[in-house]
Amino acid sequence: MNSIKVFAPATVANVACGFDVMGFAVEGIGDEIIVKKTNAPGLRVTAIHGCEGLPTEPEKNVATVAVQALLNALTEKPDQGFEFEITKKVSGGSGLGSSASSSSAAVYAVNKLLGDPFSDKELVRFAMEGERAASGLPHADNVAPSLLGGFTLVRSYDPLDVIELDYPKELYVSVVHPQIEVKTSDSKRILRRQIELKDAIKQWGNVGGLVAGLAKGDYELIGRSLVDVVAEPTRSMLIPLFSEVKNSAMELGALGCSISGSGPSIFALSKDLSTAEIVSQKFKEIYSSNDIDANVYVSPINAKGAEVIE
Amino acid sequence: MNSIKVFAPATVANVACGFDVMGFAVEGIGDEIIVKKTNAPGLRVTAIHGCEGLPTEPEKNVATVAVQALLNALTEKPDQGFEFEITKKVSGGSGLGSSASSSSAAVYAVNKLLGDPFSDKELVRFAMEGERAASGLPHADNVAPSLLGGFTLVRSYDPLDVIELDYPKELYVSVVHPQIEVKTSDSKRILRRQIELKDAIKQWGNVGGLVAGLAKGDYELIGRSLVDVVAEPTRSMLIPLFSEVKNSAMELGALGCSISGSGPSIFALSKDLSTAEIVSQKFKEIYSSNDIDANVYVSPINAKGAEVIE
Repeated sequence: MNSIKVFAPATVANVACGFDVMGFAVEGIGDEIIVKKTNAPGLRVTAIHGCEGLPTEPEKNVATVAVQALLNALTEKPDQGFEFEITKKVSGGSGLGSSASSSSAAVYAVNKLLGDPFSDKELVRFAMEGERAASGLPHADNVAPSLLGGFTLVRSYDPLDVIELDYPKELYVSVVHPQIEVKTSDSKRILRRQIELKDAIKQWGNVGGLVAGLAKGDYELIGRSLVDVVAEPTRSMLIPLFSEVKNSAMELGALGCSISGSGPSIFALSKDLSTAEIVSQKFKEIYSSNDIDANVYVSPINAKGAEVIE
Repeated sequence: MNSIKVFAPATVANVACGFDVMGFAVEGIGDEIIVKKTNAPGLRVTAIHGCEGLPTEPEKNVATVAVQALLNALTEKPDQGFEFEITKKVSGGSGLGSSASSSSAAVYAVNKLLGDPFSDKELVRFAMEGERAASGLPHADNVAPSLLGGFTLVRSYDPLDVIELDYPKELYVSVVHPQIEVKTSDSKRILRRQIELKDAIKQWGNVGGLVAGLAKGDYELIGRSLVDVVAEPTRSMLIPLFSEVKNSAMELGALGCSISGSGPSIFALSKDLSTAEIVSQKFKEIYSSNDIDANVYVSPINAKGAEVIE
C-alpha cells in the first residue's frame, strides 16, 4: 500500500461539565487526507483544500508536526517519506476541533501505511503534538474522540490516560456554527485561573453524573448533568444569541445544550433524530433572522472515529 | 407494628477524588436504633449507648432532628409519638459518618413504622437535616450511602439529585481509625475556598474515571482514579503516619487509599478480600508500633444500606 485516504471527524470538546477532559465525535463533518509514500525521505504538504492561510511548511502544519512525532517514536525509522494532500471540511476557529481532525487523520493514515506499529489509542499522544503546534497547548480532548470515536474522557494528562466511555447508541447531536470569529486566545483569557471550590464541586458532581448517565443509558440523568458552571457563564458572552439558542434547544426537548470547545459553535444532544433535526433548524432560523450566517449539522455520535475511506 | 430495630451502616465519604459528592457504605459497623411508637405525641431519646456526651434533647439530637424533618413533610401528621434508643458503634469524629448513621437509621425506622410513606431516596433529604444539626451543613455524601447502600453520587444539592452508581460486586474496603482527635472544623478550615482551575480539571478527570471504572468493573481504572489533589494534600497533614499508611496499602496491592470523609480514618479499596485483610493488618501494625491505638475494619461494599434487623 503506497497511498491511503483517511477521514477523521469533527469533535465536540468539553461537553458542558467536562471542561478540558471530555469530548465526542460527530458524523459527516471532518477532514480528509490523502497520504502517499515517496522515495525521498521527509514530509511534504502538497495541497490544502477548503481553507486558506494554513502553513504548508512541515514544521508548522499540524498534520506533519503530528506525523513527525509518530516517526520520532519509531525505533526503526522508515526509509521513505510522505506527501499529504489535506481537504479541510471543518473550519478553523469553529470550536469543532479543526486542527484535531487534520492531526488525527494524518497520524492515522501514516500508521496504516506503516503497517499499524501503534494502536489507535497510542496515536493520541502524537496527534496532541499537532494541537501543540496549533494552539501552544497539547490538548487531547478533541484528538482523542477524533481518533477513537464515541465519547472519550482524558482522565489524566500526566501520565496520559484516555478512557473510552460507554454511551447509549441512540444519541444525536445538533451543532450550529455561527460565522463569527472568536479568537481561542480571547476564549482562554476570559477564564479565571482560580475557581471557587463550591463551583468546582458542582462541576465534578455533574461530570460524575454525565459519565454515569452515559453508562446507564439514563437520558434524564445525561440531561441534568449537561451543566457547566465554570466556562459557559463567561465564554457564552462572546457568542451572539447564545441564550436564545440554548433556550430554544431546551424548549424543543433537547437533553442539554452548551458551547462546543471554546466556541463559537454550540451543540445540543437529543435522544432522537427528529428532535435533533428540529433543534438544528431552529438554530439556523435564530441566526438567519438576525442576519448572521450559520452552518448547522445533525448527526448521531460517530462511533468509528478516524477511518480509511479509500 | 409498634416497635422496630434498624441498622444503618458507617460510610466512607469523598472516596479520594469525589470530594463532597461521592460515598459508599461499609458492612459490619454502623449504628443501631430501636424506635417505639408511643401514645403521647412528640419525640424522645430514651438512651444513647456507646458514646458519651451526645445530646438527648429532641431538637438537638441528630436522629430526632432528622425524624422531625420527615414528620414535617407528611401531609397527615401521625397522632402518636416515637421513642428512640440509640446504640452507636461508629465513633463520632472518626470520619466514618457517625452522625449520618444515626440520622439514617432513625428516618428509615420511622418511615417503616408509618408504612413507608417515602421512598428510601426521599429519606436522604430528611437525614441531611441531622447532618445540619451535627455540623451546620446539610451534607448528603454520608447519609445517601448509609440509607441506600453501595456507591452514591450527589450530582447536585440544589435541587438534590442522588445517583446510585453501578460498581463491581468484588470490591473490599480496609479502614483504619486511629484514636486521635481531628476536629471537623479544623479539617474544614484547612481547605482553601478557591482552587486552581488546573487542579479542579485533574479532580473532575478522576471523578469521571472513577465513575466509569466502577461502571465497567475496570479495577485498574478505579485504582488510577483514586487520586485527590484538592483535600488530601492539606488534610493528610492532620493525620499522623498518613504517608506510611498510604504507601503500605499501595505496596500491598490495594487499588487506592485516601482519607475517609474529613478523617482521621483512612480507607483503602482492594479487589479481593485477602488483600484487604493484609492491608488492614498492616494499618494496625503501623499505628501500634508508634503507640497509637487504632481500630481496623475489613468489609465488602454494603449493598443494602439501612435495614430492619428485628
